[in-house]
Amino acid sequence: MTFPAPIDPPARLLMGPGPISAYPSVLRAMSAPLVGQYDPFMTATMNETQSLYRDVFATANDATVLIDGTSRAGIEAAITSLVRPGEKVLVPVFGRFGHLLAEIAERALADVHTIEVEWGQVFTPSAIEEAITRVKPTLLALVQGDTSTTMCQPLEEIGEICRRHGVLFYTDATASLGGNDFEADAWGLDAATAGLQKCLGGPSGSAPLTLSDRAVEVVRSRSRIEAGIREEGDASADDFVRSNYFDLGMVLDYWGPRRLNHHTEATSMLYGARECARVLLLEGRNAVIERHRRIGDAMLAGVRGLGLDVFGDVAHKMTNVVAVEIPDGVAGDAARQAMLTDFGIEIGTSFGPLHGRVWRIGTMGYNARPDAVFSTLAALEHVLRRFGARVPVGGGVDAAAEALT
Amino acid sequence: MTFPAPIDPPARLLMGPGPISAYPSVLRAMSAPLVGQYDPFMTATMNETQSLYRDVFATANDATVLIDGTSRAGIEAAITSLVRPGEKVLVPVFGRFGHLLAEIAERALADVHTIEVEWGQVFTPSAIEEAITRVKPTLLALVQGDTSTTMCQPLEEIGEICRRHGVLFYTDATASLGGNDFEADAWGLDAATAGLQKCLGGPSGSAPLTLSDRAVEVVRSRSRIEAGIREEGDASADDFVRSNYFDLGMVLDYWGPRRLNHHTEATSMLYGARECARVLLLEGRNAVIERHRRIGDAMLAGVRGLGLDVFGDVAHKMTNVVAVEIPDGVAGDAARQAMLTDFGIEIGTSFGPLHGRVWRIGTMGYNARPDAVFSTLAALEHVLRRFGARVPVGGGVDAAAEALT
Repeated sequence: MTFPAPIDPPARLLMGPGPISAYPSVLRAMSAPLVGQYDPFMTATMNETQSLYRDVFATANDATVLIDGTSRAGIEAAITSLVRPGEKVLVPVFGRFGHLLAEIAERALADVHTIEVEWGQVFTPSAIEEAITRVKPTLLALVQGDTSTTMCQPLEEIGEICRRHGVLFYTDATASLGGNDFEADAWGLDAATAGLQKCLGGPSGSAPLTLSDRAVEVVRSRSRIEAGIREEGDASADDFVRSNYFDLGMVLDYWGPRRLNHHTEATSMLYGARECARVLLLEGRNAVIERHRRIGDAMLAGVRGLGLDVFGDVAHKMTNVVAVEIPDGVAGDAARQAMLTDFGIEIGTSFGPLHGRVWRIGTMGYNARPDAVFSTLAALEHVLRRFGARVPVGGGVDAAAEALT
Repeated sequence: MTFPAPIDPPARLLMGPGPISAYPSVLRAMSAPLVGQYDPFMTATMNETQSLYRDVFATANDATVLIDGTSRAGIEAAITSLVRPGEKVLVPVFGRFGHLLAEIAERALADVHTIEVEWGQVFTPSAIEEAITRVKPTLLALVQGDTSTTMCQPLEEIGEICRRHGVLFYTDATASLGGNDFEADAWGLDAATAGLQKCLGGPSGSAPLTLSDRAVEVVRSRSRIEAGIREEGDASADDFVRSNYFDLGMVLDYWGPRRLNHHTEATSMLYGARECARVLLLEGRNAVIERHRRIGDAMLAGVRGLGLDVFGDVAHKMTNVVAVEIPDGVAGDAARQAMLTDFGIEIGTSFGPLHGRVWRIGTMGYNARPDAVFSTLAALEHVLRRFGARVPVGGGVDAAAEALT
């Protein structure tokens, strides 16, 4: 190969299920100069970022931190730290990411039980309570928004059910946080994790995580400080977490006042995560969620205005992504490719049973904007027509514009 | 708190044991716009980055990738994927990070055996071979450069010993890669991992990793593709890796031609990691190592010119960091603080037995420069005098300058 030049990505409007185009100010934050690991500015920035994410998650949990990895690093940290080998985990599966939670719990040698609904649906609280009564799990692990189907599982009533049955309640809010209602404390969550690359409008690579006091107790009961920095009087549990990197006890000691050395915090990702939360809270948490709702409704109206059928139970759709049935006779992947090549706009397909059957179109974070919706619909109209579909002239943009008035 | 402003770090010259100030071009790369996960530009950038890191590690290993996490994420991925529970791991410990390798192997439920030398020393090949003969491990896990003591373990002869005894050979080159000789293939390494925040001159948060074909075979023998994307005909081993995030089989399938969805690659960290390798190879791998050697020698001469004693076996010191004994009567932490507050220069202390006894001064990556050496020595001279030490006027800068001519 010729020697590579400095990175110079092509112009892209990322309107898929995520990752999406980051807020410009988040990209600027990523290039801020580094400071040392225990620099007063660094520890102050870590504290500040914790405080910002408490507001993002709507929690008073002291144990609110970042995991240095992608969103599934946050998921694995939560599950591996909260569940001992052999303990029961219940995972209601309504899409691909439910399977992922079950998979991660299986890797942690949990006794995993799943219930399933058809893709495109969500669970009723009573279905979840019935399974809890039957399985008696230590942990309920439930995705909030599963981008594979676009469904958003209502969580409001689940925390109370878990509390009543003595079950820890964890949710993976990667795809939903910041664009859909989320109330960690009011909903009785014991653990929640997310990523930056969806509604938070940043790059993948940092996973915000919050733990209730009850969850912290479980983590602390499995405490083990690593040799090399362990001091006299530091106890070590026999049922320690089977991972050093994901041992939330050590992660909390690093973020907390002891500042015990664990990993070297990923400074640039910290800056980016901080900026994601900052822009969200500056606009206002509810205002951002409302913007996602309004722009998501416009995109929904727009794809219907193009004559496309929407997949799944629309009443339970996330605000920030819509799945549309690829019209008969249209080559789905080739059409997506034309969107990317000719218009610089990315939309997605899906996984498993939905691969090649639906496109997923996202309106998240920075790209939850009217102009992004209009540009995507105008391009999609051209591409659909080119690939042989009959589409109403201007039907997408007009319907979206009307939804926005 | 008042609402936080955009991130605005103070000016810092990071001359500690890492993290260090990043190359300006690496910071610029961090803020490049994002693209989609399967964008042709993204997959081409991943391929290109793999190729660049093959040259950085001096290997032809196809299995050369990034782990999305800090350097210890790379360590855990390597050890957890290569060692089954109950298998023996031998860790020669010559500093804090040897303890870390042992700790991570214990978390993976390996049968961990250690040998130790006094801090400030390294192992002879015969001491390692004796232990291999006695323990008969599956894996030898050996730190190359342990920043806690500044020692650089010679690895040249170890690979041949491991091959003769049928032992897999893994090294953690986090602190050393890019600033010290490193030859993954010529030295017979089966696995090596690193981080960006030392000689590679980038931010923490991405861990380059390379695996020999022999190591890939072990990983593949434990293959398990996660439910949700598993297809008919995909086998699943019973002794699967007890982590989803760190299952190198799945990581390789994501980086490889199958492009099986695993995590969402941390795009900005990928850009940064690519630029770290690019600037290194543009200057020339041997030229960069030689620069670290030359600048490290200058810093060594400089601290001696200030009358400071150097800790450990200097003949086996890494090029990129020196540990100096804090003079009697000087308040070590307060003096470090004065360096930071008054001069904006960070130097480090160390861990365990060396905490408060030595300062560690690094010359890594972008900061392996004459001006950074001179500025640090000039500041240190002032601070030492202020804290009551008798130091030769100009002794540090003069000695460093002479070493550079």
